[in-house]
Amino acid sequence: MIFNCKKLAEDELERLKKTTRRNLSLGVIQIGEDKVSEAFIRQKKKSAGKIGIGFSHYRFPETVTLKDLKEQITRLPDDGLIVQLPIKSDLETQKVLNLVPFEKDVDVLSEASLGLFYTGRLEIFPPVVGAVDKVLKEKEISLRGKTLVVVGPGRLVGKPAAIYGMRKKATVITVNEFTENVAELTRRADVIVTGVGKPNLITGEMIKKGAVIIDAGTSKKDGHLVGDVEIESVKEKAGFVTPVPGGVGPLTVVSLLENLINKCTT
Amino acid sequence: MIFNCKKLAEDELERLKKTTRRNLSLGVIQIGEDKVSEAFIRQKKKSAGKIGIGFSHYRFPETVTLKDLKEQITRLPDDGLIVQLPIKSDLETQKVLNLVPFEKDVDVLSEASLGLFYTGRLEIFPPVVGAVDKVLKEKEISLRGKTLVVVGPGRLVGKPAAIYGMRKKATVITVNEFTENVAELTRRADVIVTGVGKPNLITGEMIKKGAVIIDAGTSKKDGHLVGDVEIESVKEKAGFVTPVPGGVGPLTVVSLLENLINKCTT
Repeated sequence: MIFNCKKLAEDELERLKKTTRRNLSLGVIQIGEDKVSEAFIRQKKKSAGKIGIGFSHYRFPETVTLKDLKEQITRLPDDGLIVQLPIKSDLETQKVLNLVPFEKDVDVLSEASLGLFYTGRLEIFPPVVGAVDKVLKEKEISLRGKTLVVVGPGRLVGKPAAIYGMRKKATVITVNEFTENVAELTRRADVIVTGVGKPNLITGEMIKKGAVIIDAGTSKKDGHLVGDVEIESVKEKAGFVTPVPGGVGPLTVVSLLENLINKCTT
Repeated sequence: MIFNCKKLAEDELERLKKTTRRNLSLGVIQIGEDKVSEAFIRQKKKSAGKIGIGFSHYRFPETVTLKDLKEQITRLPDDGLIVQLPIKSDLETQKVLNLVPFEKDVDVLSEASLGLFYTGRLEIFPPVVGAVDKVLKEKEISLRGKTLVVVGPGRLVGKPAAIYGMRKKATVITVNEFTENVAELTRRADVIVTGVGKPNLITGEMIKKGAVIIDAGTSKKDGHLVGDVEIESVKEKAGFVTPVPGGVGPLTVVSLLENLINKCTT
């Protein structure tokens, strides 16, 4: 079964629309040019617009210095600020992410936010984790005592998903490019969260019957956005699988906006 | 085989003694009274003394407020500060740990430090992780592509060990009290790090031949300090196992002092 999340995302946006009490604004910082980033930014702008959240798009050249960025970011008036990744510049990504002040860090990517996320004291989730959480809540799945396999321990998906799984008392297995016999491990999974960016990485053979497959991978194949999952072989065997596009993506944007609202009302 | 780490710890202390360039001081903050804590604090004092690092022991009553603690901690002159855990007070442990300024946080327990540890940008390790790292380095074991099973994802051992394992490109499996068939997972492990505090939790039956077992658990049994490992059945089968006492403990103290030196010379 394929769990198309667009409806859930729309419902969540409707819910958020009702809770937005004052004029909030999200600012997106883009460094250098990147076509894929432009598309993702448009998507965020569109969703923000739907629920009455203002939107600013700040473009910096790839030659911008950390010092200049810092000065300019300090002056930005938006309630929430995110840096669109990947940044096209020689600057160290984490140092750029750390320029976003804690109280505006709705993407949970600065080290100030990540410290609190790590200890479990942050009141918001990194957006992809928020999306995973929404999928599991919608399907009434508890991770306690379950086996969560996280494929690819990256910054945006795997690493925060592993921390989330630990907090939810799952047995968490993280696999990476050096893992031998990945299928032996993925077949143990009650829930798989994958975020590698490699088409057809997860096939039906690699999962157990009834498993939940949450695809947070994105890459381009023949000009189309695709996930990590070979959907044809997986959909027959899985309890459900979230597709790309139309799965975690729209819910991630919802979580981002939800974070903005939560940060500004607490 | 049992890998008694006392000799390695002594050698490391000798090495550190040569690198300590100026009079450094470690301050230990104790809140409320606790006999086990007293013993651990004495051990730190003793090791610090061996390499010429000054030592202060600050005692606060269990009724101390966060505000008072904050004021007093700000005034402490030591180069490194740690809060002895567990704290005997109603204060939230993490809030107390966050009072230690980043530049003095040699235990890597404040959220400011943990954010950088999480992203891999901190130049020091949480002391128990530092101890695990020393054991693996001494035995020339690389975690890349290996399976690391972390038993008990707690604050001091399991959670930071899991992050460390991910960074070292291990396949990391974290098991907790809700995990079914723990032995099926521990038997996959090339390296086990356990930090639960439950005697005889890990037995020979649960490990594969040649596995490395690093015991970072501590509890009391019949008045003696013991680890998580049933040493008799494990020592015959393991590549090696670190005992309690005389294993990770002394190396953890060494790592703590090494952190102090590194924080103050970089």
